[in-house]
Amino acid sequence: MARTIHILNGPNLNLLGKREPEIYGSETLEDVAQACAALGKELGLETALFQSNHEGEIVEMIHRARAAAAGIIINPAAYSHTSVAILDALNAYDGPVLEVHISNVHKREGFRHHSYVSQRAEGVIAGFGVQGYALALRRMAVLLG
Amino acid sequence: MARTIHILNGPNLNLLGKREPEIYGSETLEDVAQACAALGKELGLETALFQSNHEGEIVEMIHRARAAAAGIIINPAAYSHTSVAILDALNAYDGPVLEVHISNVHKREGFRHHSYVSQRAEGVIAGFGVQGYALALRRMAVLLG
Amino acid sequence: MARTIHILNGPNLNLLGKREPEIYGSETLEDVAQACAALGKELGLETALFQSNHEGEIVEMIHRARAAAAGIIINPAAYSHTSVAILDALNAYDGPVLEVHISNVHKREGFRHHSYVSQRAEGVIAGFGVQGYALALRRMAVLLG
Amino acid sequence: MARTIHILNGPNLNLLGKREPEIYGSETLEDVAQACAALGKELGLETALFQSNHEGEIVEMIHRARAAAAGIIINPAAYSHTSVAILDALNAYDGPVLEVHISNVHKREGFRHHSYVSQRAEGVIAGFGVQGYALALRRMAVLLG
Amino acid sequence: MARTIHILNGPNLNLLGKREPEIYGSETLEDVAQACAALGKELGLETALFQSNHEGEIVEMIHRARAAAAGIIINPAAYSHTSVAILDALNAYDGPVLEVHISNVHKREGFRHHSYVSQRAEGVIAGFGVQGYALALRRMAVLLG
Amino acid sequence: MARTIHILNGPNLNLLGKREPEIYGSETLEDVAQACAALGKELGLETALFQSNHEGEIVEMIHRARAAAAGIIINPAAYSHTSVAILDALNAYDGPVLEVHISNVHKREGFRHHSYVSQRAEGVIAGFGVQGYALALRRMAVLLG
Amino acid sequence: MARTIHILNGPNLNLLGKREPEIYGSETLEDVAQACAALGKELGLETALFQSNHEGEIVEMIHRARAAAAGIIINPAAYSHTSVAILDALNAYDGPVLEVHISNVHKREGFRHHSYVSQRAEGVIAGFGVQGYALALRRMAVLLG
Amino acid sequence: MARTIHILNGPNLNLLGKREPEIYGSETLEDVAQACAALGKELGLETALFQSNHEGEIVEMIHRARAAAAGIIINPAAYSHTSVAILDALNAYDGPVLEVHISNVHKREGFRHHSYVSQRAEGVIAGFGVQGYALALRRMAVLLG
Amino acid sequence: MARTIHILNGPNLNLLGKREPEIYGSETLEDVAQACAALGKELGLETALFQSNHEGEIVEMIHRARAAAAGIIINPAAYSHTSVAILDALNAYDGPVLEVHISNVHKREGFRHHSYVSQRAEGVIAGFGVQGYALALRRMAVLLG
Amino acid sequence: MARTIHILNGPNLNLLGKREPEIYGSETLEDVAQACAALGKELGLETALFQSNHEGEIVEMIHRARAAAAGIIINPAAYSHTSVAILDALNAYDGPVLEVHISNVHKREGFRHHSYVSQRAEGVIAGFGVQGYALALRRMAVLLG
Amino acid sequence: MARTIHILNGPNLNLLGKREPEIYGSETLEDVAQACAALGKELGLETALFQSNHEGEIVEMIHRARAAAAGIIINPAAYSHTSVAILDALNAYDGPVLEVHISNVHKREGFRHHSYVSQRAEGVIAGFGVQGYALALRRMAVLLG
Amino acid sequence: MARTIHILNGPNLNLLGKREPEIYGSETLEDVAQACAALGKELGLETALFQSNHEGEIVEMIHRARAAAAGIIINPAAYSHTSVAILDALNAYDGPVLEVHISNVHKREGFRHHSYVSQRAEGVIAGFGVQGYALALRRMAVLLG
Repeated sequence: MARTIHILNGPNLNLLGKREPEIYGSETLEDVAQACAALGKELGLETALFQSNHEGEIVEMIHRARAAAAGIIINPAAYSHTSVAILDALNAYDGPVLEVHISNVHKREGFRHHSYVSQRAEGVIAGFGVQGYALALRRMAVLLG
Repeated sequence: MARTIHILNGPNLNLLGKREPEIYGSETLEDVAQACAALGKELGLETALFQSNHEGEIVEMIHRARAAAAGIIINPAAYSHTSVAILDALNAYDGPVLEVHISNVHKREGFRHHSYVSQRAEGVIAGFGVQGYALALRRMAVLLG
Repeated sequence: MARTIHILNGPNLNLLGKREPEIYGSETLEDVAQACAALGKELGLETALFQSNHEGEIVEMIHRARAAAAGIIINPAAYSHTSVAILDALNAYDGPVLEVHISNVHKREGFRHHSYVSQRAEGVIAGFGVQGYALALRRMAVLLG
Repeated sequence: MARTIHILNGPNLNLLGKREPEIYGSETLEDVAQACAALGKELGLETALFQSNHEGEIVEMIHRARAAAAGIIINPAAYSHTSVAILDALNAYDGPVLEVHISNVHKREGFRHHSYVSQRAEGVIAGFGVQGYALALRRMAVLLG
Repeated sequence: MARTIHILNGPNLNLLGKREPEIYGSETLEDVAQACAALGKELGLETALFQSNHEGEIVEMIHRARAAAAGIIINPAAYSHTSVAILDALNAYDGPVLEVHISNVHKREGFRHHSYVSQRAEGVIAGFGVQGYALALRRMAVLLG
Repeated sequence: MARTIHILNGPNLNLLGKREPEIYGSETLEDVAQACAALGKELGLETALFQSNHEGEIVEMIHRARAAAAGIIINPAAYSHTSVAILDALNAYDGPVLEVHISNVHKREGFRHHSYVSQRAEGVIAGFGVQGYALALRRMAVLLG
Repeated sequence: MARTIHILNGPNLNLLGKREPEIYGSETLEDVAQACAALGKELGLETALFQSNHEGEIVEMIHRARAAAAGIIINPAAYSHTSVAILDALNAYDGPVLEVHISNVHKREGFRHHSYVSQRAEGVIAGFGVQGYALALRRMAVLLG
Repeated sequence: MARTIHILNGPNLNLLGKREPEIYGSETLEDVAQACAALGKELGLETALFQSNHEGEIVEMIHRARAAAAGIIINPAAYSHTSVAILDALNAYDGPVLEVHISNVHKREGFRHHSYVSQRAEGVIAGFGVQGYALALRRMAVLLG
Repeated sequence: MARTIHILNGPNLNLLGKREPEIYGSETLEDVAQACAALGKELGLETALFQSNHEGEIVEMIHRARAAAAGIIINPAAYSHTSVAILDALNAYDGPVLEVHISNVHKREGFRHHSYVSQRAEGVIAGFGVQGYALALRRMAVLLG
Repeated sequence: MARTIHILNGPNLNLLGKREPEIYGSETLEDVAQACAALGKELGLETALFQSNHEGEIVEMIHRARAAAAGIIINPAAYSHTSVAILDALNAYDGPVLEVHISNVHKREGFRHHSYVSQRAEGVIAGFGVQGYALALRRMAVLLG
Repeated sequence: MARTIHILNGPNLNLLGKREPEIYGSETLEDVAQACAALGKELGLETALFQSNHEGEIVEMIHRARAAAAGIIINPAAYSHTSVAILDALNAYDGPVLEVHISNVHKREGFRHHSYVSQRAEGVIAGFGVQGYALALRRMAVLLG
Repeated sequence: MARTIHILNGPNLNLLGKREPEIYGSETLEDVAQACAALGKELGLETALFQSNHEGEIVEMIHRARAAAAGIIINPAAYSHTSVAILDALNAYDGPVLEVHISNVHKREGFRHHSYVSQRAEGVIAGFGVQGYALALRRMAVLLG
């Protein structure tokens, strides 16, 4: 698993680039996967991107990362605010975790201001658009030394 | 997709007519589907009814409705109160959305008084029994002109 | 009183169709009365529509309905959120009660999310425009068998 | 005005004895008026009983009491919990004020636990049935010496 | 135990008439006992008055009342606001319970506005001075028929 | 209606100058009416002053102002804190609204710190005594150009 | 279904014995299954143990238990705190329900102090390690007589 | 003190089996003492059961257990919810502590959902009837190895 | 100091007329100073206007006013909502204090609805634009007789 | 009683020096008594130290102090946070009261941040270890002149 | 820096002895400085007293204390309740910190009951007047051994 | 001002690298300035770094940035949580704003979870150590095109 980073994405992110572009921009998740792969190469990291709309599947993605990933970058989307199960799964993961939100959740509705995942993540980045993924990858390279 | 209405149903509604009849009545979801189909015909609308106990599947039903449905009638059941993911999926849907609750949730436990879906829906109907679906369909006919 | 339905309307509804049409539409309360009368005829129900801006008068309308109405459809408007007196009056009424809000109060200011009347009503319909009255009347026909 | 006590009653109390007897008992407001008159005679006090369903009229009853009543016994009913206007009117009254609730409001819904009037009243009696009026009158006799 | 009423008094009431007379008046608990005994005689009720500063002793007074008292009049004083144990003891008592507070607790600090005992008592009287005991006794005579 | 200002006054203000002078001063509402008329003349504005203790009447005063008044100066008194109906009526009024409180409500009980009307008013003035009416009239002259 | 007990386990419990042993111990879920089967034999009960990371699957496990299980022992893990859907499913189940938490959730983060399931369960056991399952089984034997 | 377990019981539990049997069952505390003694014998543990209605005495029972008991099983009853003093006493005790509630406190009034003792106890068992004591004893045997 | 009024202005008000004109208008603080000086002349008052972005400097401006100013008009801007230090400084000032907000803070974000300064000020004026300074000066003239 | 100071100590303080020394230090209550006696001598004050684990006894200690003590130094320990009865007893005491906490309660659990006694005490000292008693005694000497 | 104590004072304390003597007494900060110097001499400690009305300057005083002071005694005055910056500065200081409030802040407005500094201070003393500084100095002597 | 980025730093950040290295790391603010300058060169951006412990100075730094900076990167440190004044200053700034926190504030005390600045910033980055500045600079390059 040496030096592979799993990039996990929560519900509705399969629509990225197709819905509400004024909030989320026009790049798709596939674009994100390619940009991360390219940047990862430069940083000496492999990347693998996954997406699911199912809380249980994201829990299991994290379980799989226990053996397969040196670090996790996660955009839990709506589940940030409601999922203790994902927090618990991350608590059972040993490597570094970075949390990404495409929009600045702190400027939106009150229920988006709290994230269970933030209580586990080393760092959180919000409102940097899809560039947030790349910046998290840069941070991951530093954390993994 | 012209003039097709998707009627989406959340967790435990597969038991409709079989559990707690003093709250939910004795008609089944199949009965609802048939009644809506018949009324839809009268109103010039096709209807398709779906049910799932999985939050993620409901998210994906809504994604499919983006291309397939002129309007959504949704009874999110328990997920009304806990799912930001379903709200986000509905925010990515362009057509009208009507929310149905079979029982009057406002007379029940406090945690049933708030619905994330209500922040997106054009209208909400609660406590009208399964007739609520039919009345929502009548409203949909007006909204779609 | 057999099969007469009283349709009670709270403060400012005398302005219906004349104020904030983007929220409340352009039909007047007189239009509502006529539409309900016509639909009632079809459903075998007489209807009588009343409106008052005075909390005390609405309390007394409900008192009169005890002897005169088989069911009450009520749009308490602003008093939904502030009147325990109307709730108490309805608690002294034996027939079915249905609550109508023209706009979707759940999408508006927080103080509009709570209704005392909902703790008594059999059902609540919000955001269906003035069509909500007609749909409530259809429900009433079912409730009265 | 010497030694006349005004007994003011709020909304729905005109139905006393006719609604929800398991909560409010079967005596009417007229019965209360007669019992108070008889007891008042014994105590050397005249009594006059008023009722209104209108908040504004109760405000004005209190205004009239300024010149006409040596003390006020008030059962504000539902307005206990919602009316700052009645509190303000009582603040402009100089004599003693006693508050009566027929049922024990502390055992009912949470919104009945707070009374604006209690912040002004010398004493409060709740859950003593209609006997509460008589007991308040006995207290008034002591307060007025 | 036929027709004996126990009058229970909580902490600091042994100082009645000796502390803060502007709040509690100048009559002592002994004066209360005598006044109640006299009035009881007139009403056909025996009375026995007890006081303790110990929560546990008040619990046990109530246990004893199960076999010995036809009704309880209780002024729980400070324990009104903090003692679930006294509430539980009263829940194990079958006869009527009336709660007395000498001062109008609703006009004092916020923590005095809530009483656990009120959730069990048939009635509550506050701010009627020591006359509250006598009025509660009059009510008890009615409740016991 | 050109250049007529309606000055609306809520419950208990008919007692102005007669109750609690340490809070409200000794000038009467009639004094206010005359002072405003005189100042209005100087500013080129007609004024008409109304008062009611009834929430419903104040709602209807505002309805009448829709056709008759270029601006509203309102002292909702106790209804500031409890009336959504008055807020709704003002929302249906197009001209400028200024809110006046004679005392500084922010220094009084907590329930006086919130005003529904403030969410609609262009400006709020509190604690300036009855001079607040005159100052609001000066502002109105500027707002109406 | 006579005398079969379903033992349902929520998210991340497939990792039992492998993650955070200082909180959850070193026994696996398979160990729990075997210990329960052995103890069940002794008590005259069959047991079947299931686990899922998916809220929807747990809902459906409960649906299946309606026909197949005389009682349910459930460790809802993270879904205890967030799932109304599981509560609703249990409300549609007629037999006894016992809730197990391996760790003492009351000593952990605040959001773990509330469980929707506890509102339905006959009993709750927390902080007894995996022995909690066995103790719940003993209780089940008593409840089923 | 080797292998002696103190079973401490809070207020009103002396009435066990005699009050509210629908909540607490019909076995007495003496029955519990005998059942625990018998089971303890089987598990190699001596047991001693104490009860008091006095918070201070329970504090002192815990002080005595410091020298005399290898473990404490405590049913703090009403003091669970109100006593910091008992929590502090338990904090000064070194052995394992298990908390028992006969009824499922989580299904009862809100003020019964929080227990100070749970912040110290290794485990909590609620709603298992008086069998909860026996199950706690089984756990104690495991904890003491 | 006879008859000099200090007009104190908090953070960001040096930008007045230059930022967010839709909220604050286009007049500068210099314009305010000149208008107040002119009006002051008419009213027999001298005025001196100060501004600072530093909480500590505003505290010291108030200290200086103790010897130099017959009254204070203060627009604390953002420090209204966060500065206990300014409240304490005003508490050490003996003359009248009037508080001005250019915008109607009650219509903006929730954290702008509370002002520490309002607990000390004689009066508060909000949403009257920069005219609020002039009106406060008129009030000051009356207060100073 | 001239110049005698009562030093009252609440629950668990009999264990002082024997429990949790990292929080409470290793000096015993006897050590405190001797140190205070010695310092008192120097300051011209007699001291008498009492301890009880019973709320009711502390209430009665305060009653006795009414006649016997010129001032009270009290460490209410756990009862600080829960006892209105002790507050009421202190309200019936005329001399100065100083409150001592050995540990800095403000750094511990939230429920230790509030003390009823602080609403009566002239001064509060927390986190000064057992030296807090001596410092309070020095203050008492000043207060008593 | 050996054995020098910095005594830091927050906003408005330059007015000590000159404002609100009924709360703060009549001694000035200069008096405090001299008394502390004298007592320090006796205790083998040098003292230096500083005051500022500026939050930023107090932060910097604490920075300077890192190299210059063996301990800090701080009366943060109003900044106690609002300044995270001062807390952060103290977190970067290694020596002991004692917090002094001249008045008993717990008896004043609610917003004075919380102090950020208390989360860092070893001890807190409130309501001991200016003697609090001297007592803190005595404690400091003990802490520094 | 074309393409100059101001990097503003709040209270205590002058100690960066010198205090609490386990939270903030060992690099100094000077290191940050140099790293940003170097990266800026690569990205075609000039950078200028400022620090102040004074809220008012940070407000004025933002005022100066209005004319001098194409974008602002701000680490408001403790003032994030308490300063409305800085938020207001940023609201008067037109360019993009990015907020940096060195530690993950979401994992620390509750009062660090809310930032006023986040309501204005385009993006927020927390817990990325001092690398957060560099990543924000990369984002700024994208935002400025």
